[in-house]
Amino acid sequence: MDIKTVTVSDFLAELGSGSPAPGGGSVAALSGAMGAALVSMLCNLTAGRPKYADYDALARETLTKSEALTQRLLDCLRDDMSSYNGVIAALRLPKSTDDEKAERSRALQEAYKSATSAPTNTINNCLEVMRLSKNLLGKSNATAACDLAAAGIEAHAGILIAMDSIRANLAVIHDAEYVKRVRAWAENAEHEAEELLREIQEAVK
Amino acid sequence: MDIKTVTVSDFLAELGSGSPAPGGGSVAALSGAMGAALVSMLCNLTAGRPKYADYDALARETLTKSEALTQRLLDCLRDDMSSYNGVIAALRLPKSTDDEKAERSRALQEAYKSATSAPTNTINNCLEVMRLSKNLLGKSNATAACDLAAAGIEAHAGILIAMDSIRANLAVIHDAEYVKRVRAWAENAEHEAEELLREIQEAVK
Repeated sequence: MDIKTVTVSDFLAELGSGSPAPGGGSVAALSGAMGAALVSMLCNLTAGRPKYADYDALARETLTKSEALTQRLLDCLRDDMSSYNGVIAALRLPKSTDDEKAERSRALQEAYKSATSAPTNTINNCLEVMRLSKNLLGKSNATAACDLAAAGIEAHAGILIAMDSIRANLAVIHDAEYVKRVRAWAENAEHEAEELLREIQEAVK
Repeated sequence: MDIKTVTVSDFLAELGSGSPAPGGGSVAALSGAMGAALVSMLCNLTAGRPKYADYDALARETLTKSEALTQRLLDCLRDDMSSYNGVIAALRLPKSTDDEKAERSRALQEAYKSATSAPTNTINNCLEVMRLSKNLLGKSNATAACDLAAAGIEAHAGILIAMDSIRANLAVIHDAEYVKRVRAWAENAEHEAEELLREIQEAVK
């Protein structure tokens, strides 16, 4: 499945099938990509309008960032699918001899770490979508304020889902130093996401 | 834009453009459709597996419902786009004479009510996705428990966004009886969604 060419219908069919990927991690990235696209929409509904001339520069500058974020989140979706397949490949390695067992275990640990990087990138990009949404509050087309809240809600949903993927990986990674570092980062990211969602939703209400 | 044939990339591009639809309401429906597809995935990873034989019937029965919900939520997406275009059409009616003003106002009120029905259907279908997710807790493939939580999170995000669309419409609808009835329904739906999300997330943690 190539995310650059797949139809929405086929993506949903593949998601609903019993194949290991796409799964929740891919949905998290697409959720964030929709949030980024909604930010782009707000920018396009603001830039060039005389009524919002004061925010024209902000809208154009934000648009460049939100369009890049949409693409980066589609990259996260692709990476999530391939890293998940990496875990499956490691799980299928032979485990008859002690050497094979050691090699399989090493490959699995690598694969779990690698599978943590896609949701980490998803979260960082979704946080950026939420920051852009917040920056546009009161500084963009007021008739589409609901869509700004929608952008925040989608990006936040992406973060929650990606966070669950990370926690599931950390539970089986032995490198204590790595686990500790990622866990601390995740707590901060989660806290920032909650704060941003609260601010965005309050402002739009 | 036909949601049955559009690619994910083109959907995101159209979403990010300054065209009035698709917007937040369409994203809400697609978010719910992804949730429904994740429920289908869980069913497909459960049905037919000896380890989960006890839940085979539940998985098969749920799959029929979740596949129908995916399609129904794509219908909501399509309806959301067309009802939004109905509001735009009413806004563009002439308003030079008193008769024209009265007719435009009547058409607008009809369009706002009609635009409330797509997010209402989105919410009802998303609630059903959340109920199906909750029913599968502890009764489906345990290795994909995270994806069950992801289904709940996506459907919940769809509800939050559709709720904002409804509130924006209610603010401009004059029919007090209608507004009161929808508002009471919305409060109940929001409460149920919060409860379901809490239960799903706690169970998966």
